[in-house]
Amino acid sequence: VTDSSTPARSLRLKLAYDGTAYGGWQRQLNCVSIQGLLETAFQRVTGERVSVTASGRTDAGVHALGQVASCNTNSSLTPDALRRALNASLPSDICILTVQEAPANFHAIREAVQKRYRYQIRTGQNRDVFARHYAWQIWHELDLEKMREATQHLIGRHDFRSFQTSGSQRKTTVRTILDLTLQGERTDFGQRITLEVEADGFLYNMVRNIVGTLVEVGRGKQTPSWVSEVLAARDRRRAGPTAPARGLTLLHVTYPW
Amino acid sequence: VTDSSTPARSLRLKLAYDGTAYGGWQRQLNCVSIQGLLETAFQRVTGERVSVTASGRTDAGVHALGQVASCNTNSSLTPDALRRALNASLPSDICILTVQEAPANFHAIREAVQKRYRYQIRTGQNRDVFARHYAWQIWHELDLEKMREATQHLIGRHDFRSFQTSGSQRKTTVRTILDLTLQGERTDFGQRITLEVEADGFLYNMVRNIVGTLVEVGRGKQTPSWVSEVLAARDRRRAGPTAPARGLTLLHVTYPW
Repeated sequence: VTDSSTPARSLRLKLAYDGTAYGGWQRQLNCVSIQGLLETAFQRVTGERVSVTASGRTDAGVHALGQVASCNTNSSLTPDALRRALNASLPSDICILTVQEAPANFHAIREAVQKRYRYQIRTGQNRDVFARHYAWQIWHELDLEKMREATQHLIGRHDFRSFQTSGSQRKTTVRTILDLTLQGERTDFGQRITLEVEADGFLYNMVRNIVGTLVEVGRGKQTPSWVSEVLAARDRRRAGPTAPARGLTLLHVTYPW
Repeated sequence: VTDSSTPARSLRLKLAYDGTAYGGWQRQLNCVSIQGLLETAFQRVTGERVSVTASGRTDAGVHALGQVASCNTNSSLTPDALRRALNASLPSDICILTVQEAPANFHAIREAVQKRYRYQIRTGQNRDVFARHYAWQIWHELDLEKMREATQHLIGRHDFRSFQTSGSQRKTTVRTILDLTLQGERTDFGQRITLEVEADGFLYNMVRNIVGTLVEVGRGKQTPSWVSEVLAARDRRRAGPTAPARGLTLLHVTYPW
């Protein structure tokens, strides 16, 4: 027996989006959000007013290749028919990659156990016109080896309070960084630098604050070991600036099933 | 003695641009052109009204990583100072990569001896949100091996009249394709296909018409040897459709010096 107030199915959606045009994931007044467009598409396709929850609320300008969202529905459409119909109702900078049946009341935030982000940087005197929405353009060369040395202080279980932008309310600021890599590639005009970081959770702006801090080291303004002092201080004012949103992409979210 | 009517210097500019927002290279009424923005930037920086000539007039939506342009100037700024000042006056989707002194009256069209283009395709049921301005999205899988077999008929010196969009007036439609490669990469959702082609010159829409023709083969609508029939017919109506502009990027232009 199905109670009409309890939607019959729980769904897990995997999404890619170019965040350039949006005010972020979260539905809000005065700007277009990815959540808002998705919920509107759902209503158009199924007639239901659903609430779609993402693994995390990406900020304005932040991108995703593997955002995960949950929602409950009474629709009888197959997962693949839903994917196709929703994609047909969404703009070309948002795409639902997969729709899967999920355990009852699957919740994309609460059940996420790990996330992986990418941050892209370009250096050199010429801007990369194709990366202008997807990378932080820095005019000076960065010392990649020094930055790599600095990352060693961040890997593992630490209190990352120094890397949390204030305004967020979390019970604990302790997180475990499981992987943190920096790849560099030389081009005719500078460097393409890609940071990837995986953790059991991230504080607000944590990746962007880590990147801003590592860039201080890469520019030679600070030594690699300064990063361990920043970490120990547990004070946001000690870390580097927040790197721009456009360089950040949510790559992957891991769930226990 | 310098005649004031003869500009003292000839310059060679190498440019990258994202063509998405523009009506193409050529200055025209009713839309913004790359040539127009460049000439306006020149006037702002040097006070001169210069005419900038590109190696070829890329169409609306076509991109460049290595467009070359020529112009004459009386400015006394160094090439590097000019590059920096012009870039500061240009929008973020256009970048002058290098400025070099050129032989007197260097002409970017007449002196070009080879050009290299790239064309990008994505296949699969999900659109690639980050490639929406840079690739042709095709919903069906393509048979890359059959497409490669078809390219063999096009390499070398041929009359490419079948691959020329009408309206262009060229003395001869014979061109030599020096290199034509197709690279494929599988992703979770489909294929990323990159065609690169180098020739001693290209007819109007020649790359896009070649791509549209090869895609007919890749989709199984035509056999690889059909391409040699199309070539022999010297009739545009025999070839495939013109591939969309957004997949095309001018990579490189070769000059004898």
